Amino acid sequence: MSRHELTAAEVADRVGGRVAGDGTVRITGVESLEAAAAHQLSFLGNPRYRGQVLPSQAGVVLVPEDFEAAPPAGRAWVVCRDPSAAFCAIVAHFAPPPPPVAPGRHPSAVIAADARVAESASIGACAVIEPGAEIGERTVIGAGCYIGHGATVGADGHLYPNVTVRERCRLGERVIVHSGTVIGSDGFGYVPGQDGHTKIPQVGIVQIDDDVELGALVAVDRARFGRTWIRRGAKIDNLVQIAHNVVVGEHCLIVAQVGIAGSSRLGRGVIAAGQVGIAGHLTVGDGATLMAQSGLSKDVPAGTAVMGTPAVEHRRYARNLYNVGRIDELAGRIKALEAEVADLKARGAGGPPSKPA
Amino acid sequence: MSRHELTAAEVADRVGGRVAGDGTVRITGVESLEAAAAHQLSFLGNPRYRGQVLPSQAGVVLVPEDFEAAPPAGRAWVVCRDPSAAFCAIVAHFAPPPPPVAPGRHPSAVIAADARVAESASIGACAVIEPGAEIGERTVIGAGCYIGHGATVGADGHLYPNVTVRERCRLGERVIVHSGTVIGSDGFGYVPGQDGHTKIPQVGIVQIDDDVELGALVAVDRARFGRTWIRRGAKIDNLVQIAHNVVVGEHCLIVAQVGIAGSSRLGRGVIAAGQVGIAGHLTVGDGATLMAQSGLSKDVPAGTAVMGTPAVEHRRYARNLYNVGRIDELAGRIKALEAEVADLKARGAGGPPSKPA
Amino acid sequence: MSRHELTAAEVADRVGGRVAGDGTVRITGVESLEAAAAHQLSFLGNPRYRGQVLPSQAGVVLVPEDFEAAPPAGRAWVVCRDPSAAFCAIVAHFAPPPPPVAPGRHPSAVIAADARVAESASIGACAVIEPGAEIGERTVIGAGCYIGHGATVGADGHLYPNVTVRERCRLGERVIVHSGTVIGSDGFGYVPGQDGHTKIPQVGIVQIDDDVELGALVAVDRARFGRTWIRRGAKIDNLVQIAHNVVVGEHCLIVAQVGIAGSSRLGRGVIAAGQVGIAGHLTVGDGATLMAQSGLSKDVPAGTAVMGTPAVEHRRYARNLYNVGRIDELAGRIKALEAEVADLKARGAGGPPSKPA
Repeated sequence: MSRHELTAAEVADRVGGRVAGDGTVRITGVESLEAAAAHQLSFLGNPRYRGQVLPSQAGVVLVPEDFEAAPPAGRAWVVCRDPSAAFCAIVAHFAPPPPPVAPGRHPSAVIAADARVAESASIGACAVIEPGAEIGERTVIGAGCYIGHGATVGADGHLYPNVTVRERCRLGERVIVHSGTVIGSDGFGYVPGQDGHTKIPQVGIVQIDDDVELGALVAVDRARFGRTWIRRGAKIDNLVQIAHNVVVGEHCLIVAQVGIAGSSRLGRGVIAAGQVGIAGHLTVGDGATLMAQSGLSKDVPAGTAVMGTPAVEHRRYARNLYNVGRIDELAGRIKALEAEVADLKARGAGGPPSKPA
Repeated sequence: MSRHELTAAEVADRVGGRVAGDGTVRITGVESLEAAAAHQLSFLGNPRYRGQVLPSQAGVVLVPEDFEAAPPAGRAWVVCRDPSAAFCAIVAHFAPPPPPVAPGRHPSAVIAADARVAESASIGACAVIEPGAEIGERTVIGAGCYIGHGATVGADGHLYPNVTVRERCRLGERVIVHSGTVIGSDGFGYVPGQDGHTKIPQVGIVQIDDDVELGALVAVDRARFGRTWIRRGAKIDNLVQIAHNVVVGEHCLIVAQVGIAGSSRLGRGVIAAGQVGIAGHLTVGDGATLMAQSGLSKDVPAGTAVMGTPAVEHRRYARNLYNVGRIDELAGRIKALEAEVADLKARGAGGPPSKPA
Repeated sequence: MSRHELTAAEVADRVGGRVAGDGTVRITGVESLEAAAAHQLSFLGNPRYRGQVLPSQAGVVLVPEDFEAAPPAGRAWVVCRDPSAAFCAIVAHFAPPPPPVAPGRHPSAVIAADARVAESASIGACAVIEPGAEIGERTVIGAGCYIGHGATVGADGHLYPNVTVRERCRLGERVIVHSGTVIGSDGFGYVPGQDGHTKIPQVGIVQIDDDVELGALVAVDRARFGRTWIRRGAKIDNLVQIAHNVVVGEHCLIVAQVGIAGSSRLGRGVIAAGQVGIAGHLTVGDGATLMAQSGLSKDVPAGTAVMGTPAVEHRRYARNLYNVGRIDELAGRIKALEAEVADLKARGAGGPPSKPA
């Protein structure tokens, strides 16, 4: 028997829910509704999976309060306010512990004599910390990371292996950065000329505030001057491009492969879905939603949902889609009118009404 | 004379083709039709280049069986069933040998005492292998790679320099991973709240089956729980995003910069062309083709080709495009009808009033 | 007082402009119009910010010659031909010096005995230089970079940390490569088969000519044979995909997240805006402009601007957008015509023939 085994009743206790069905059902792990076996717990987090609850083999399912069907014999529901959050708690119960963090400085790390690295920080193998850099208390710098001259990483951060932070960039507290991400590369700026483009120096920095998480393989360019700024609590998914002098507002959610061009500013709580592109020098208001693959060419007011390239208010986008779909029908009506008008003209021209065909 | 020099007749022998023209023409290398010189071999792999065969300077050209024109004096065709595959064989003949793989463990690599690294594996300079990791026979781990705690890489694999594999992820046999790719970063999942988003633990893994190839700078997120799964023989191009709990079916071809959102499942042999986006929780049937830049917002049946954002069956997309292109013409016809009707009404005004309906 | 402090008159001297207003105003740094304080200099580089000049607190503003409003008391304009270029010069005056480049070879770097590394080059910590590679005079190879067997990097280059250059690739002089970028990964090429895809060897190279700059996390695949070629002076932004055998012409500007499929060729001075996709085997003429998110499915003539997926000449795209927006209005006119025609028919049926016009 697993050390972590739980009964349905124990699950209900842990998540503040109530049991429907057999509270003694035992589970030893978690799985999706589709894949779960009798000794596993699952959850109904997205209404689209509602029809999978009864057919599922899961011994215990976390369900929302409005889920009405009763559990079959030998199974149990745990009814709770937020099955998705409850599921997180049970997942954590069964999850293997995270890999241990080796305390201190790996002997293969290359740490400048005048870098200020907290005693409680962990510096991984082959990491490089340049002169003047600072690493806060309990922060983990993964293997192969590069922290440039004078860059700072606040307390309780975690940079996974092979992250690059260029000179003078500043990361706040509790910042998480996934592998491969590059912070502080030069912005893309040139003065065009007859014999080629002359590079505009990019002498600003990147500032990343507290509680930000950056995914894998994200590029955040340093400012031309001043700062590129990712504000508190923003969460950025993989392969996102943040150009120079962009401001990403507090608690924004930026989904994978979004690109934000230079000097654009996102307000608080903006959601940019996957593969959205935002042209330069735009303002996106608080709480706006940018639907997947949209391409913004002008400002977006607060609270608005937009879609398409160029992006328009999403109901207008839907109306346009509907209208494109009925062009064939409209063309058919035009053709019918043309025939009727020709017929009317023919009658009028020839005198008496034409006979029916 | 090059050690590798071949005559047209020798080329025909090697590829199982037959010579048309002068079998004694000698070649010392390969080039495209456009760039080849008299001592080089080229091939007609794509019908769009058919018109380049005769003007080409290539001494020998691999052509398909339906290619009819005869070679000019002093040149030769080698007629074969699959010129592209035949060309591969000749390219391989002339190619420089791949760089030698240094056997064993580079002294600068940092390998945990309890990692199980096969004797025949090669571990590059400054690579880091964490405790509990396993590296199979003859597998090459390039310089600067990171293999996390308990991760496994099967036999005969090749991880090019600077790849990151996070803890507990599992790679099968003959897996190729190009530089910069990140396997097992955290999925993008948060519980939204008034004062910010709370991170949902991502405690699953990534499982990559035998014979998969991942391009450069690919991001494959670990599952929220369970696994993100790339099945046998799938081939994934550069800069692709694979979110948590995605399943990529056997022998899928995923072209560069595609993004697949969380929990979506691709069947066997799906082709996703460049920059396609797939929303979360979707199912794409076996053998479906997703045309470039499409954005999927709903399931795609097996064998279907779709295009556009939101993606629709590709003939409907083409019809919509055609229809948008004729709106001006339809508008002109409406205007003409309006004039004619006005004219008819004007005439009618001279006659007796119609009776009420 | 800052060692770098300047008066408005000194600014005018440095940039070849003339002072309007108080030439004694002192500045100690630079900022945007919006954020600048009285002791800072700003600039009007983009006409869209014209309205911000007077409200700005900036003590000195670089303005173009056609800017007419006079400065308020205590502030000054420096009028000049190119405020953006002038601003660069002043930014450079105040910028912190770039991080010092450590001369020579870091002791932790792993450099093959037969690699030819110039005396004046700088090889960073944990960098790996394979046998036969060459590094030119004064070139900087950042920490954690990998330079493969026989690869060459010309003089005066700068590879930022964690760049990967695979075997035999050739970089010219003054080439800048930002962190995370991968040069020379295998092209994406397979022969499809019933039981999976067979890899086509990718035995060519990448050639990057003088004065090219590559952003962060760019993927440039090696050629199937011959070369993938980025020509002199081209500038490539972050997260761009360059497939095998692509040619990028001199002085092209390729913005972030663009993808160029195999064997396509871009002429001189092409501008590809963000997230553009270019299908394989296409030719894009000199000076063409590919607008953001466009998807090219056929050749683009020189000097043309295109937009959309599939991309069309941009005026046609604009016309199509306009036309889609008026479908509701056209449908309304069709409906009105139908009513009128029905009315005419009703009259015609009941009354005498109309007279000829």
